[in-house]
Amino acid sequence: MTPAPFTSALTAPLLGDPEAADILSDARFIAQMIAVEGAFARACGTVGLIMPEVAQEICARLDGRMLEPQDLGAGMASAGVPVPALVARLRAEMGRAGDGLHWGATSQDIVDCAHVLQWRDLLALLEGRLARLLDALRARSDAQAQTLMAGRTRSQSATPITLGLRIATWAQPLIALEAEVPHLRAQVLRVQYGGASGAASATGAQSEALGAALAQHLGLSPAPCWHLDRTGPQALGAWLVRLTAALGKLARDLILSGRSEIGEIRAGKGGGSSTMPQKSNPVGAEAILTLAHYAACLHPLLAQAAMPLEERDGAAWALEWLALPQMGIAAAACLRQAAQLIDSLQPDSERMRAQLNAGNGAIMAEAASFALARHMARDTASAHVKDALATARVKGLTLAQALAQNPSLGGLEDWDICLSPQNAAAPSEAMRLRIWALRKGA
Amino acid sequence: MTPAPFTSALTAPLLGDPEAADILSDARFIAQMIAVEGAFARACGTVGLIMPEVAQEICARLDGRMLEPQDLGAGMASAGVPVPALVARLRAEMGRAGDGLHWGATSQDIVDCAHVLQWRDLLALLEGRLARLLDALRARSDAQAQTLMAGRTRSQSATPITLGLRIATWAQPLIALEAEVPHLRAQVLRVQYGGASGAASATGAQSEALGAALAQHLGLSPAPCWHLDRTGPQALGAWLVRLTAALGKLARDLILSGRSEIGEIRAGKGGGSSTMPQKSNPVGAEAILTLAHYAACLHPLLAQAAMPLEERDGAAWALEWLALPQMGIAAAACLRQAAQLIDSLQPDSERMRAQLNAGNGAIMAEAASFALARHMARDTASAHVKDALATARVKGLTLAQALAQNPSLGGLEDWDICLSPQNAAAPSEAMRLRIWALRKGA
Amino acid sequence: MTPAPFTSALTAPLLGDPEAADILSDARFIAQMIAVEGAFARACGTVGLIMPEVAQEICARLDGRMLEPQDLGAGMASAGVPVPALVARLRAEMGRAGDGLHWGATSQDIVDCAHVLQWRDLLALLEGRLARLLDALRARSDAQAQTLMAGRTRSQSATPITLGLRIATWAQPLIALEAEVPHLRAQVLRVQYGGASGAASATGAQSEALGAALAQHLGLSPAPCWHLDRTGPQALGAWLVRLTAALGKLARDLILSGRSEIGEIRAGKGGGSSTMPQKSNPVGAEAILTLAHYAACLHPLLAQAAMPLEERDGAAWALEWLALPQMGIAAAACLRQAAQLIDSLQPDSERMRAQLNAGNGAIMAEAASFALARHMARDTASAHVKDALATARVKGLTLAQALAQNPSLGGLEDWDICLSPQNAAAPSEAMRLRIWALRKGA
Amino acid sequence: MTPAPFTSALTAPLLGDPEAADILSDARFIAQMIAVEGAFARACGTVGLIMPEVAQEICARLDGRMLEPQDLGAGMASAGVPVPALVARLRAEMGRAGDGLHWGATSQDIVDCAHVLQWRDLLALLEGRLARLLDALRARSDAQAQTLMAGRTRSQSATPITLGLRIATWAQPLIALEAEVPHLRAQVLRVQYGGASGAASATGAQSEALGAALAQHLGLSPAPCWHLDRTGPQALGAWLVRLTAALGKLARDLILSGRSEIGEIRAGKGGGSSTMPQKSNPVGAEAILTLAHYAACLHPLLAQAAMPLEERDGAAWALEWLALPQMGIAAAACLRQAAQLIDSLQPDSERMRAQLNAGNGAIMAEAASFALARHMARDTASAHVKDALATARVKGLTLAQALAQNPSLGGLEDWDICLSPQNAAAPSEAMRLRIWALRKGA
Repeated sequence: MTPAPFTSALTAPLLGDPEAADILSDARFIAQMIAVEGAFARACGTVGLIMPEVAQEICARLDGRMLEPQDLGAGMASAGVPVPALVARLRAEMGRAGDGLHWGATSQDIVDCAHVLQWRDLLALLEGRLARLLDALRARSDAQAQTLMAGRTRSQSATPITLGLRIATWAQPLIALEAEVPHLRAQVLRVQYGGASGAASATGAQSEALGAALAQHLGLSPAPCWHLDRTGPQALGAWLVRLTAALGKLARDLILSGRSEIGEIRAGKGGGSSTMPQKSNPVGAEAILTLAHYAACLHPLLAQAAMPLEERDGAAWALEWLALPQMGIAAAACLRQAAQLIDSLQPDSERMRAQLNAGNGAIMAEAASFALARHMARDTASAHVKDALATARVKGLTLAQALAQNPSLGGLEDWDICLSPQNAAAPSEAMRLRIWALRKGA
Repeated sequence: MTPAPFTSALTAPLLGDPEAADILSDARFIAQMIAVEGAFARACGTVGLIMPEVAQEICARLDGRMLEPQDLGAGMASAGVPVPALVARLRAEMGRAGDGLHWGATSQDIVDCAHVLQWRDLLALLEGRLARLLDALRARSDAQAQTLMAGRTRSQSATPITLGLRIATWAQPLIALEAEVPHLRAQVLRVQYGGASGAASATGAQSEALGAALAQHLGLSPAPCWHLDRTGPQALGAWLVRLTAALGKLARDLILSGRSEIGEIRAGKGGGSSTMPQKSNPVGAEAILTLAHYAACLHPLLAQAAMPLEERDGAAWALEWLALPQMGIAAAACLRQAAQLIDSLQPDSERMRAQLNAGNGAIMAEAASFALARHMARDTASAHVKDALATARVKGLTLAQALAQNPSLGGLEDWDICLSPQNAAAPSEAMRLRIWALRKGA
Repeated sequence: MTPAPFTSALTAPLLGDPEAADILSDARFIAQMIAVEGAFARACGTVGLIMPEVAQEICARLDGRMLEPQDLGAGMASAGVPVPALVARLRAEMGRAGDGLHWGATSQDIVDCAHVLQWRDLLALLEGRLARLLDALRARSDAQAQTLMAGRTRSQSATPITLGLRIATWAQPLIALEAEVPHLRAQVLRVQYGGASGAASATGAQSEALGAALAQHLGLSPAPCWHLDRTGPQALGAWLVRLTAALGKLARDLILSGRSEIGEIRAGKGGGSSTMPQKSNPVGAEAILTLAHYAACLHPLLAQAAMPLEERDGAAWALEWLALPQMGIAAAACLRQAAQLIDSLQPDSERMRAQLNAGNGAIMAEAASFALARHMARDTASAHVKDALATARVKGLTLAQALAQNPSLGGLEDWDICLSPQNAAAPSEAMRLRIWALRKGA
Repeated sequence: MTPAPFTSALTAPLLGDPEAADILSDARFIAQMIAVEGAFARACGTVGLIMPEVAQEICARLDGRMLEPQDLGAGMASAGVPVPALVARLRAEMGRAGDGLHWGATSQDIVDCAHVLQWRDLLALLEGRLARLLDALRARSDAQAQTLMAGRTRSQSATPITLGLRIATWAQPLIALEAEVPHLRAQVLRVQYGGASGAASATGAQSEALGAALAQHLGLSPAPCWHLDRTGPQALGAWLVRLTAALGKLARDLILSGRSEIGEIRAGKGGGSSTMPQKSNPVGAEAILTLAHYAACLHPLLAQAAMPLEERDGAAWALEWLALPQMGIAAAACLRQAAQLIDSLQPDSERMRAQLNAGNGAIMAEAASFALARHMARDTASAHVKDALATARVKGLTLAQALAQNPSLGGLEDWDICLSPQNAAAPSEAMRLRIWALRKGA
């Protein structure tokens, strides 16, 4: 469809996300590299590797300086990284002060630091959206706390639950992800400084102080060089894949619940068809599902990137560039679409009730079985329930009626009360509240 | 690094390919959709579903008509496909004739046909490059037919081969791919026409003739509707992955052969470093390797896309859009980079010879073992060779010298002749020619 | 659940396949390696590399000889391939004749040839099952040629089709796969002989004749060494993934069609629940779907295996061992489960009819739109249909009734006739027959 | 090669791990399911759902009870889970007490809890091995703290480092993984109890207490039902993939460092060849690399498993069974092989020194460049270094000699001192110690 699904004006409105695409854009990447070079020069000044006035002049020259992607494309093609061209270009503009630029740094220091700054912004964006989505899910879940519906397991009616519980289960993996953000930040937001072979030998005894100063200027944690330790990118990727998968589950449920035959929940402004006037396609949910599979598929690239050869490996490293921005935008787009779906959620409690009563009330078979098991062996109980289900189907009765009409079973319980789906409301509510209690401070 | 590695002005010069990106661009996609709508209207006219003059007017109106991606983005976001917006827009421009537009087609008909037309152009591009690359490999292989080098298995010196054979083995999977292009075209270049649910019910009895006319106008094969049969996209994807993997193997070999310690083959204009003046990084080969892993990783999306629900499935289908354009450009970029590497290939026959003689000539151990086995049991022979290797290492002899100096073995063969790496030239050449004989018409 | 899902007595009955597991078993692999060593010795005798009587003795000794997996495990661990241990063991048993064993071969020759022989048996098994499944699908498709049902696109009722057509679309990718078997055999069933570095230098001038004799004895095609050209494994893998995906699509449809709310098609003996007496879980279809995703996920390993370093690469090659047997058994298990599903298919034409009429007949909206478009502009027609759908919903009418009651539209058509789902039968049947016509000789 | 690479007596010695395979075996899984049923009955007794004496009798009957995999295979095939057959079998043995068995549980409760118990044992195994491997790496790193070697970036000589630093970088991602084990345990070792649809409705008001009692009896954390929240399996999988990738990086380096042409580090008992007496193949490292790619490839299955439909999804859930045991054994096997490699590590400091001096000392080009830059503009400095490198090559000098002989540069520094690789020792050591300082308590 397009070689650039997340930036194409054709497909980005469906599959992309303008805010995340901006954070992860070429322009922002270049701006962050320039900011890193500035911070690096300032740090060199701080630790005495370059003269303070040189550092100041570099910072002044770089302040607000911007280069266009096309300015660096040829350099990227010839060096495999944009930094030599970037440094050459910037240095050329600043006379002798330029000698203090990029003093003892290597390309990967600059690129990884710039990426970390982008990821920081991405995490802030996603964390905010995640919190808002969880708030919205909480409100929906609370509102539907008493709405009974058929729980389905393995695509079959199982036992009743509440819609409030269903919505809470959508939130459950998201709550875990939200709680992990501080840990993830600690893994990801680390300064990268190692120099040519990761030993920072060009800056010698000052290197640790230099890295610390750089970290401080960039607002990152100090860290030993992680050229070869791709914990951060992998941790970020794993978190993003879990996020998109969690939203993918929500999307799959909504596609199913909104089907013509089920119609229990509608969400999203249904998409029109080019030929069928009646269609209301689950466009937003489909997009989430597509993106969730896409993000999962890119995931192995990050493990491959974590197997670089020797001190640095151009082929392995670049795999991150082909995976993380895509996964990040996919996650943002999924959150965007999910927010719209939850905002527009329209439960149809009548359809839910109808479905609960469908199948002659067979959804209460487990409950019937446990009720009978108080009076007889469980196998016998289960066999009675199967018989009663068959009777109910043949005679057009409910399961409760079939049991009540059975001379040997009818008096054991008040079957209407015993097999009321309403009985599932309290346990569903208890479980629902336990799930939401996982959300700290909420 | 960028959300759009194949179109970004920063990264496309390294990882992308301008010709393939053009073929697979938004602009070309939209143009092909318009062409398909035109051909469809013409086909409707041919079979009498719409009036010939209406068909003519539609074709005239569409001729050269172009829409911008942003014209269709909102429609894409709301419908999940660009066709409703495209049709609405085009129809609005052509008055009553517009009613004949898209008569009985469904979105997937238009999109899949447009993609097939793009894939046709892509295949032509790749086939041409593949043929030229094979020609270049053939020339290089011929030129190095007698250049001896150490064959390595499992990262160890094994037995001598020729560089001509090594180059032929790079070509071998490419020869198979080239030979399969006609078969691949037959799988891929099929017209898509099925209407709303794949039964083409809106065009009734004319549907088969309509599909045939559409096929003819587009230069494609007639076919039953393949909304649900994703043989074509899967076959294309499998071919592209095999292509990028074959080039990835070549790239891995070149990265290794160009290492400082080996230096047997240099290729590409080495990329510079931001800090190390001596570096000559294997940028082109690394890019190929990165892209080969990337394309392989996207591959499973095509199988998932081949599991659509029911008559059409928006979430499954869109997975192809996120995989095939990327795989197509990756393949083109790999071919582009590989052509540059082969064009600039600089074998260093001295380094190769030195390596053949390194390790005291241990690379001839298999030959020694077979020579001795003509005179004794093989286990004994092999043990003698291991002893001689140890002796050679300790005394600083070659394996041939160590064997010659052994009183009980020295006279069995003329060891210098018997263990000359030159002996491997003839069998290598025979195998080389057998590989190249696989290329039909070459 | 188990580290060995395809051989565990616990899980193999669900996920495995006894016939395929036997073909791909350790025991068969070892037997095939012994058979290859025998054929190789015979071939060496044929071309004069070893004495005919030695070849004969080797063959006699190997005839019926079997080794246990545990006999080779330690050798596998130390060499990374089983061949050195196998050869040592066999050689030790045959005295001086043993020197003629494995003369000039390398481990990969033996292992790859043994695998090819296993794949040949696997292909025969799968081809037979595929043919029988297609026969069964054909019979079911024919039997349901007139059974109308709601076609669904993007999880929404779309337009009517027949169940016969739906079943034909399940068959469609399988028909393509069946037709490709001869081509696949040509890609896969090639002899492997290249010796230590792929130049077959140990057997010198006889090497091509030797390879040809080996091919003849094994019933394979002669070929240049393909140590580095993994076309065969990749082609086999791509075919297997397409096969499992095609069956995965069928499985997804059956899981959906057999849901409590839809109930249009039941298939399989529903699986019981540990607690819910009424459940009838779609166990077989779920297993297919699981296996289809699993096979797709393994696919990239084959591309990685196709990027071996230099003349042979132990790490890359072994990736095939971890993917192809698993994919092969998964495919066989999917075919086995699919055959059971199709054998037990129970369409419920009443539920299908009910669903066609549900939603006030909205499924005929496209037909109404085209009918009106014969009398007015299409946008107007489409708008009228949307109005009529709204009216129908509000007043509890069918779409046909709503249109008939509209003063300005009622007279334009006989709406009951025009909007009968029965109208879709003929086009569905035509498409169905076109699909089946793709199956040659059927 | 085998359908069961981790349990086959042929391949497990190479690719498998006996301890991990035992923990994840069918037998252990069944034993854990029986243990879970016992603990569940006991918990039911604790909260009063069944009579204490019934609970006691169940526990007594289950104590030491074992079933064979084949006892449950048919049940697995018909139900898609082993629990109905397991419960039926156990219940049949215990008379009326059996009615108290599995009271209100669903299959997924039992299976997930059993898996968690297996994962607990697996984590203990891996944590122990990881600690021992880190200890061994630390000892090796310390011992080689002053061993200078050429750092390589992008497969080219870059700047000197120490082998002690290289080894520390192998440890670096492993240190992070070790530190995360407590967090991982908290994510993974949670009790699963949700009953039929995750609302635990069969056990009503006692359900939370029941879950807590079950957790206590099993030594797990209490948790709301996580049928649909696959945080635990995903977190475990991500950790395992990071672990195998970290070891894969180590393996790639060792394969490379042990090559004939480099020979700086040997590790492992080199594997023999079936035909080449001199070979010493890097079998253990290759196995690690194969397994690392394999584990990464399986990873996406866990994301797909995290997108289950509705309240439970048989097809999605089973994907975990096909991925996690395999990933777990792969990780254990990688640790086992890595331990052997590190134990047998043989650095060759002479080869390292030779390589440092190769290329006319070009590895000191960065240092030369920075030294000159103290006296002139950096571009000028860099150009001088490139000139000196060319002079050195042509005249057979070292870079230091070439600079010293240059009239305008020779006096600027004592070039022998300035360009001594020894200068890299201190910064390498500083970085090395910073990495090891990441290991808490070590």
